[in-house]
Amino acid sequence: MEVPSVLHMIGGDGETSYSNNSIVQKTAISKARPFLEATLTDLYCTTFPECLRVADLGCSSGPNTLLVISEIIEVIEAICHEKNRISPELQVFLNDLPGNDFNSIFKSLPNFYGKLKKQKGEESGRCFISGVPGSFYGRLFPSTSLHFVHSSYSVHWLSQVPRGLESNKGNIYIGKASPPGVLKAYLEQFQRDFSKFLTLRSQEIVHGGRIFLTFLGRRSADPSSKECCYIWELLAKSLMNMVSEGLVEDAKLDSFNLPCYLPTAGEVRAIVAVEGSFIVDQLEFFDVNWDANDDDNNKDFVFDKCTSGKNVAKGIRAVAESMLTTHFGEAIIDDLFSRYTEHVAEHLSKEKTKHVNLVISMTKK
Amino acid sequence: MEVPSVLHMIGGDGETSYSNNSIVQKTAISKARPFLEATLTDLYCTTFPECLRVADLGCSSGPNTLLVISEIIEVIEAICHEKNRISPELQVFLNDLPGNDFNSIFKSLPNFYGKLKKQKGEESGRCFISGVPGSFYGRLFPSTSLHFVHSSYSVHWLSQVPRGLESNKGNIYIGKASPPGVLKAYLEQFQRDFSKFLTLRSQEIVHGGRIFLTFLGRRSADPSSKECCYIWELLAKSLMNMVSEGLVEDAKLDSFNLPCYLPTAGEVRAIVAVEGSFIVDQLEFFDVNWDANDDDNNKDFVFDKCTSGKNVAKGIRAVAESMLTTHFGEAIIDDLFSRYTEHVAEHLSKEKTKHVNLVISMTKK
Repeated sequence: MEVPSVLHMIGGDGETSYSNNSIVQKTAISKARPFLEATLTDLYCTTFPECLRVADLGCSSGPNTLLVISEIIEVIEAICHEKNRISPELQVFLNDLPGNDFNSIFKSLPNFYGKLKKQKGEESGRCFISGVPGSFYGRLFPSTSLHFVHSSYSVHWLSQVPRGLESNKGNIYIGKASPPGVLKAYLEQFQRDFSKFLTLRSQEIVHGGRIFLTFLGRRSADPSSKECCYIWELLAKSLMNMVSEGLVEDAKLDSFNLPCYLPTAGEVRAIVAVEGSFIVDQLEFFDVNWDANDDDNNKDFVFDKCTSGKNVAKGIRAVAESMLTTHFGEAIIDDLFSRYTEHVAEHLSKEKTKHVNLVISMTKK
Repeated sequence: MEVPSVLHMIGGDGETSYSNNSIVQKTAISKARPFLEATLTDLYCTTFPECLRVADLGCSSGPNTLLVISEIIEVIEAICHEKNRISPELQVFLNDLPGNDFNSIFKSLPNFYGKLKKQKGEESGRCFISGVPGSFYGRLFPSTSLHFVHSSYSVHWLSQVPRGLESNKGNIYIGKASPPGVLKAYLEQFQRDFSKFLTLRSQEIVHGGRIFLTFLGRRSADPSSKECCYIWELLAKSLMNMVSEGLVEDAKLDSFNLPCYLPTAGEVRAIVAVEGSFIVDQLEFFDVNWDANDDDNNKDFVFDKCTSGKNVAKGIRAVAESMLTTHFGEAIIDDLFSRYTEHVAEHLSKEKTKHVNLVISMTKK
């Protein structure tokens, strides 16, 4: 699988689009906000550029794309107001892979700018938004051109499916039954990728600039622990069902593995230390329920296994469909996710399960 | 008509797409190249940034979009080679209205970068391409952030249809029968728009930076002269035909006017002088045949009125369809362009006709 050409969220605004099924990612953005505020305040105490250049890597296409930018603008306006400074101009680079639906984002910009002007008035700092297509495992920006790099729910995606997963039969990610070689292959791929990511960003970020990442991780040392793997094990189970009914070939399932890895804080810290370009300022965890509608802020939430099953399955479908379709063909997708919906519902009726989120803020040395 | 939301070239790569019907624009880019070379050489004699920041305004979506960028890269590489300098990094901002098909451009970038690496090697300056959606009659970039602004076949488009065209009956642009008020309304709209364009760019371009524009104009003082108007008069004629057959309402035609203006060199110079931010370094004319396949470089060309009629009509359709559809509805478009094809063919069989192109290079004071 050529990850850069295959991995993209489902575009447009249809029922199965990422745009309509990204509440987990939205909740994560909202939970990361206090850390974002701390980072930007800290950055703004040392740097006061006339134009603050910001990149969001893996911006996707949907309400979350501009939500992140709104938050960054709000935080900066608040800091400037408090410090009695003139707001800087803001140049925002939205990055994602070339298959991302940038047209949808761009069409929503006139409305976004209109609202911004209404809220902040003509006097506030201008915001200039652009799109930058490309993999963040390659260079994306000129040397020392960025002050702040943000990325949410993207860095757990690898540049490629690790090599050496032939023995990972019946799984599509690390599972309980995966042999040690599989765990090693995944970890090593993440080490290479995340290290490369840091080196590339260190070339693009100015001295003293910040990088702020939220991504899926795990607390447990065990890379096959439920908190990071079970959501994919259930998808593997749905695929196995279809294998047993002759709807999917055995070999086809065995040769499919996801290009992602959910690291521990220790694994991340070790890579940052060895790579050497950044200092870790903060590294924290927070949780988001698989069904993110089930949130402390949503007081009206009443658990219903079928609804939650659907919500979770739609969210995973919006993310994984492009990869699954490329490997298995389009024909199986509806059936697969109908099975998956049931498996998730069944599981959630027994046990509420959470995504573990890692949020890390770093300064360029 | 809300020009920013209506005006866009036909996207995708279908038979009627701009991508497949933009040979006039391609020919203009190629004929403007010697002037582009002179401008960039001149710029590079005074400015040697480590990262050259370039914008192309009204980039559209098709082979011409990246052709312009290729030309700029080639010219800069040649200058650096000659002067024995290291090539700069190049940050390119492709701008067009938010309705432009940026997705198509972005999907073609991996291939573009791949070719570039092959041609120039890893050693040459890196190129970073981004998309910036928005009208160039508003701010698009942070203050003093650009070294070079390029625009081809865009600045003749106005920010809006001029007011006060009620008397322009039976025409869709300035025509032989247009009363003087119509000419005045068009000229004044162009004066306001082009002046604003210059002021906005002067805020975005560094001192000593350049702006290089190619757009449709006219040599004749008469704003209803054939060289600039007849291509649209024939489209008005096709619409009139449909009015006489009851296929288009009379009032509908009378209320449609194109948001474009084709100025003389004198009109352009006067606006630049009054606005005051730029010095004109060079202002030249060149011609491109309506059927741009009919070119001195194309020795195999044999004139056939039907083929040429089709070529011209397809080119105009790719540009004007979005506006015509918004005003007249989709249903009339095929019929309209079939009539137009015949009218153009008939005209070309009597008289070879050319687009007059104005190319202007200016330095920011």
